[in-house]
Amino acid sequence: MEEILIAGKPVEAFLEEIRKFHGWVAPGVLLGGFMVDYALELVGKEVEADAIVETRFCLPDAVQLLTPCTFGNGWMKVLDWDKFALSLYDKKTREGFRVRLDVDKTTAFPDLYNWFMKLVEKKDLPLEVLNQTILEAGREALSADPVFITNYYAKIKKGKTGICPSCGEAYTLRQGALCISCQGEGYYQPNENPADPFLRRAVSY
Amino acid sequence: MEEILIAGKPVEAFLEEIRKFHGWVAPGVLLGGFMVDYALELVGKEVEADAIVETRFCLPDAVQLLTPCTFGNGWMKVLDWDKFALSLYDKKTREGFRVRLDVDKTTAFPDLYNWFMKLVEKKDLPLEVLNQTILEAGREALSADPVFITNYYAKIKKGKTGICPSCGEAYTLRQGALCISCQGEGYYQPNENPADPFLRRAVSY
Repeated sequence: MEEILIAGKPVEAFLEEIRKFHGWVAPGVLLGGFMVDYALELVGKEVEADAIVETRFCLPDAVQLLTPCTFGNGWMKVLDWDKFALSLYDKKTREGFRVRLDVDKTTAFPDLYNWFMKLVEKKDLPLEVLNQTILEAGREALSADPVFITNYYAKIKKGKTGICPSCGEAYTLRQGALCISCQGEGYYQPNENPADPFLRRAVSY
Repeated sequence: MEEILIAGKPVEAFLEEIRKFHGWVAPGVLLGGFMVDYALELVGKEVEADAIVETRFCLPDAVQLLTPCTFGNGWMKVLDWDKFALSLYDKKTREGFRVRLDVDKTTAFPDLYNWFMKLVEKKDLPLEVLNQTILEAGREALSADPVFITNYYAKIKKGKTGICPSCGEAYTLRQGALCISCQGEGYYQPNENPADPFLRRAVSY
């Protein structure tokens, strides 16, 4: 069998990177590797490409591992659409390619089709079997189309910073007169007496 | 000067990781490293911690570099609140710590204060000077509080998958009768005749 390369690196090295970064070799990240590899080739190495990913699940990590685009540097944007597709495009010309897992083509790989359409329970499709299918399928279950990006391409700017008069913390003034937390949308409450003994020690530092 | 460790690794190694992953040594990621390091210590190594980050800028990459939490594995959630703060918490007990850059404490480090409050232009504060200040400040400009997480802690579930009758692509049925793209919220249009000569070759594969 020919050696499989993902974005120029042996697939074993990529599998190890997935394990280290993502915590386990999730099929979505492995498959995403083939998608990013394909998009990179189509867009060309000389292009400084930004990424738009159409699902929050798994695929963003393939982009972060194989391209310079990360969530925190803003070159990768994530749309919470639950579509297994991504676009890489030239940030200057907004031309690029969209690559997707093509449901019609997955029918040639029943395990992949059943996983993608959520027709099989995890316990009935061992991870190793599914990942082996993904390795065999490679690009054969993918489709790619040339696209021109019409939305979500702009760099997201930080707003002006102020001090929230309620909590005294810095926040972006575009949130309003108070920060979002103080508007009642917060996600935490004080916890001065944790149940966990280790945390109790940490609190009394 | 004592050797600085970030989550157990020499700061030089962390700087190199930032450069490789984020593309450049952004002050927000370096500062974020100290924040994650502090939160990890407070929460304790034995805890499997999830992360909530309160800004999309830079800080998510510090979390992804120093913890098992990534955007794609769902253990890190990002709130687009533009607050420079994050929480690490035990996913079972929902107890943890919130660490933030404390604006009052930054006044002891004028360059850090001016950068954080956006009172200085990039050209007037060289990156090396700002990063040196961040290294000197370490945890001195941070505050940490014990918290109990009340929101955003649940694992985000994938929806049921169907085929969009308009584009024929797989999508999550909770989006409605058509996928979001076909509802008119798309971000691309076909580009069969790219202006870029390399892309034209790629299209005619």
